[in-house]
Order: sequence, then structure tokens, then C-alpha cells
Amino acid sequence: MNDIVLTGDRPTGRLHLGHYFGSLANRVRLQDTYPMYVMIADYQVITDRDLPGDIQRSITDLLLDYLAIGLDPAKVTICRHSALPELNQLLLPFLSLVSVAELSRNPTVKDEIAHSSQAAVSGLMFTYPVHQAADILFCKGTLVPVGKDQLPHIELTRMVARRFNERYGEVFPLPEAMMGERPLLAGLDGGKMSKSRGNAIALSATEDETAALIRRARTDSERLITFDETRRPEVANLLTLGSLCLGRPPHALAEEIGYGGAAALKRLVTEAVNEFLRPIRKRRREHTEADARQILAEGNARARERAIRTLDEVGAAMSL
Amino acid sequence: MNDIVLTGDRPTGRLHLGHYFGSLANRVRLQDTYPMYVMIADYQVITDRDLPGDIQRSITDLLLDYLAIGLDPAKVTICRHSALPELNQLLLPFLSLVSVAELSRNPTVKDEIAHSSQAAVSGLMFTYPVHQAADILFCKGTLVPVGKDQLPHIELTRMVARRFNERYGEVFPLPEAMMGERPLLAGLDGGKMSKSRGNAIALSATEDETAALIRRARTDSERLITFDETRRPEVANLLTLGSLCLGRPPHALAEEIGYGGAAALKRLVTEAVNEFLRPIRKRRREHTEADARQILAEGNARARERAIRTLDEVGAAMSL
Repeated sequence: MNDIVLTGDRPTGRLHLGHYFGSLANRVRLQDTYPMYVMIADYQVITDRDLPGDIQRSITDLLLDYLAIGLDPAKVTICRHSALPELNQLLLPFLSLVSVAELSRNPTVKDEIAHSSQAAVSGLMFTYPVHQAADILFCKGTLVPVGKDQLPHIELTRMVARRFNERYGEVFPLPEAMMGERPLLAGLDGGKMSKSRGNAIALSATEDETAALIRRARTDSERLITFDETRRPEVANLLTLGSLCLGRPPHALAEEIGYGGAAALKRLVTEAVNEFLRPIRKRRREHTEADARQILAEGNARARERAIRTLDEVGAAMSL
Repeated sequence: MNDIVLTGDRPTGRLHLGHYFGSLANRVRLQDTYPMYVMIADYQVITDRDLPGDIQRSITDLLLDYLAIGLDPAKVTICRHSALPELNQLLLPFLSLVSVAELSRNPTVKDEIAHSSQAAVSGLMFTYPVHQAADILFCKGTLVPVGKDQLPHIELTRMVARRFNERYGEVFPLPEAMMGERPLLAGLDGGKMSKSRGNAIALSATEDETAALIRRARTDSERLITFDETRRPEVANLLTLGSLCLGRPPHALAEEIGYGGAAALKRLVTEAVNEFLRPIRKRRREHTEADARQILAEGNARARERAIRTLDEVGAAMSL
């Protein structure tokens, strides 16, 4: 059986360089090798109360960012969760294959219960790993790029698929987690990179906005620039960013700057980032919101067809 | 707002007189007053492992029984759960509105956990009340004929509807339980009436099969027939059955039989049942399996349209 990649994003705002180097660049590489589904988790975001101001706007931005980085809608099926009702019908058999005890043991759920209380944990949060199994299995995804914290979810998805197959007959593949080494970029203030903290460079920011953000970045007062992640994390983070954009090792950049200090470092990183993002930003401007809507509509239709096909197989296996 | 009745059955075999007097007769009455949805819970049955031998056969039989008792497909929308993927999409917002603690407090779920163990309770069982909320609210059902044991489910459905409306805007009615006084018929052996125990008279049984079943019914050896539910439950049960079929009080029947003993009682009940079921059985023979399939297909289409409309309203309320 051929591999299929399933990945996705929560539509919570424009994508930034942390997303790019953390996962998007990987998708652009993967699209030439595997069929890929990119799921926009709009329905989850809404129900989680993780409400963006304007979800339609967020989704359009996400689409434009995807096109900007070079995701090719001819190769990649981009769809939104709320457009796939058939996907949710998988929840019934899947929920029947998992026990309450197993759901309680899921680390994310356990965390949530520990941090709040059982009264505050919603049925949605509690069953979240099963929803994720449906999100992966609806398209028979076999490869799921994930971070380490999501490994237990993949494990549960495999368990659900295995139990379904054992009980009803072979329908689902057992998906595998794809763990790449991905650089962890901190935000420009040294904290976690996040749009809401104003410490992230959006792919769609202008060159001036980018320059201003990097100008405000935290550094230190040592004139000699060195790459030392432990002692000088902020400087190291800027060097990593420059390194990723230029495709050269951070030590080499540090050496090149030498005694130029923070000013020279920021100048170099600003140029590197703007240079790197130039073609991406250019492609973003070449696409209209109408393009984005069109591509999403086509992706939704393709994904839904896939979901219906899977559900038909499920129904046949269950002799419905 | 006008009332809508939501009711349904698990497709586990042919319907019998217990079903008829317990709920079906009520539906036939209600169909002249309210729009009604009758949901065949095929998807739940399958996932619950409550597997009938041949579910297609069971569903066809159910349809033929519905037509036989006089449910009018022009008034009643008969549909099967598995034909309504949009219904299941309601699960996400609904699950988000209920806490794990609330789900754990549901008496049916508590029972299940007490009788087996948490490890044996599936995620489906645990979230079952939320599925039922979706089954009721997809068509904006306002009246749900239920037994007493299902009142907590209706309560949870009301809670889900109320919370949804509070959070996203008015979409759902708060459904109410319809509790009629319904005669509780025991099986012919004195136990719970159930097809699998062979103690139930199927609506579609022949007159001879009916006579044979009643002949084997448990009674006692007192010649004087009296209606005494405490001391003579089996005799009282037969009198109740005769009474329901004849529309006369059980005491009157007992008096009429007098010292005729069990033989006369059984003769009277056999005639009463066969007489009562004659038009029902006649109508059953007038309908073909193709009729049944056709009616179900039309009902599915209508119900799905209704589900899609509700889901559209839900999406708009959630600004999707």
C-alpha cells in the first residue's frame, strides 16, 4: 500500500517562521513524494473555545500562506474539518473500540485533568484522541508528522485501527508517526514563539515590519558574537534563524559578525530573513482570496469524496 | 414553535405485542397530531456488539412492521442512523458542552461501570447520552416518548441544547419527555418479553404460531379465573393481553371466563390476539420488501436534508 501523509493546522492566525521551519518546510518537501492531506481544524478550534476573532479570515490567511510557501494544490488536498461530516461518523465505531480507562490514561487528557479538574474537562477533550484517530484514518493516512508530545495520540490511532480491522475486517492502515529533527525557534523575546506575543515573524509581514521586529529582539551587550545556546540563548536564537534562512551553520555566521555586536547581528538576520521570505511573500501577493476559496472548495470536495469512500468501506465491513 | 416527535428502535428483530402496546400504538396515535421522526438505530446496534444475525433483514422487517401497524410514511419520516452522517457532526460541539464528571454521573453509565469495570466501559457507552442528544436534536425534536429509565438522557439533552443556545445563539428547542401510562406486558413465560426468549408474540406471527405460543403460556391450576396481578401474575398477564386486544377491562374478561380455567382463558386470548392482529397482518402482507426499501430511502433523504439544515444553522451560529 502506498503511503499517505496526513497533517494539519488549527486556524488561529497567520503562519510565522516558527511554523515554517517547524513543519511547513517539511510538508513542501513531502508533497513531491507522497499524496498529502492538510486538514484545517476549524471545527475543533471553535468547540475548544480557542476562538480566533474571525475564523473565515484565519482560514483564508492560512490558505494564502500555504500557497505562498509552495504547497501545490495539485499534489496536496487542503480541506477543512467542518466540511467533512462523514469523518465524524467514524466516531461511533472508534469510540466503541476504546475504553474509558484507556482514554483516561492518555497523557494529554491526564494533564488536563491534573491542571484543572474532572468537572472542567469536557467530553470533547476526553475523547479528543478518538477524534484525532478519525482525522487521520478518514483518508487512510499512514504517515503523520508529529512532535514528541503527540506520539500517544498516534499510538491510540494505531490501536483503534488494529481493533477495527480485527473485529470487522481489514479496512485501515496502521499509521506511523514521522518525527524529523526540527529546529526549535524561540520567539524574538526569548519566550515561546507565538503570534499573540508579538515575538514571531509572520510569513506575510512586510520587510519593514520584519526589520522592526528583529530590531526589538532581545540580545545582550557582548560585542563579540558567539553561538552559545546555554549562556546566550537570545543571540543563539537569532543566529539559528539567520542560519536557517541562509542555509549556513550558525557558528559560521557568528564568526563572520565577530565583534560587530548585536547591531551587526540584527542587520545580518534581517537581511537573511527578508531575502529568504522574498519569493514566499511574492507568491502570496500573486494569489487572491478568491484563489484561496477556490482551492479550499476543491480540496474539501476531494477530501469529502475520500471520507465517503472510507465510510462506505466501513459500512460494508460492518455489514450495514 | 411546533412540536416534533422523535422516537426510534434498535433493529434487533421483528416487533412483538410488547412493542406494540408499549410504544407503537402510541406512535400511530401521535402521527395524526405531530410531525414525527422514527430513527432506526442501526449504527449503534452494530457498534454495541448487539449484533443481529442479518441487520438488513432486521431493518426490512422493522419497516414492514411499521407499515403493518399503520405508520404512514407520508406523515412519519422513517430513517436509519447510518444514513445521516451530518447528525454525527453535532457530536463535537455537544461533547464540548458536557464535562466528564457530568457524563460519569449519568445513571446508565454509572450502572454500566458498577456492573462491569471502567476498563470494560467503552468510550461509546460513556458518551452515549451525548449521541442521544444528537439523535434528538438533529431534527429539532421537542417531544420524546420515553420510559422512566431514559429521563436522565432527556435531561442531558436539554442541558446540551440550553448550553449550546447560551453560548452560540438560539438554535435548539429544549425537548421534553413524553411519559404515557403504558401497560407492561410480561412474556408468556412470566419473564421479560423478548423475542430471543421465545415468549413474545411477533406482530407478523401466523395465527397458528400465535395459538401455539399462547398454548404453551404459563398459568396455574385454579379453575376460577380472577385478575390478581400479585398472586396470579401469569394469569393476570394473559388477561391484560386479552384486555388490550379487546379494549375491555381484564376483570370483565375474568368474570366472563369464570370457572373455565386456563384452557378457556387461552382460547379467549388466542382469539382476541389473532382478531386484533388480523388487519395488521393483512397490511403487512400487502407491502413488499421493495416498498420497505423505497420508504426507507425516501425517509433517509428527508431526514438527511433536515440534518443538513440543522448543521447549517449550527455552523452559522458558530460562525463557521
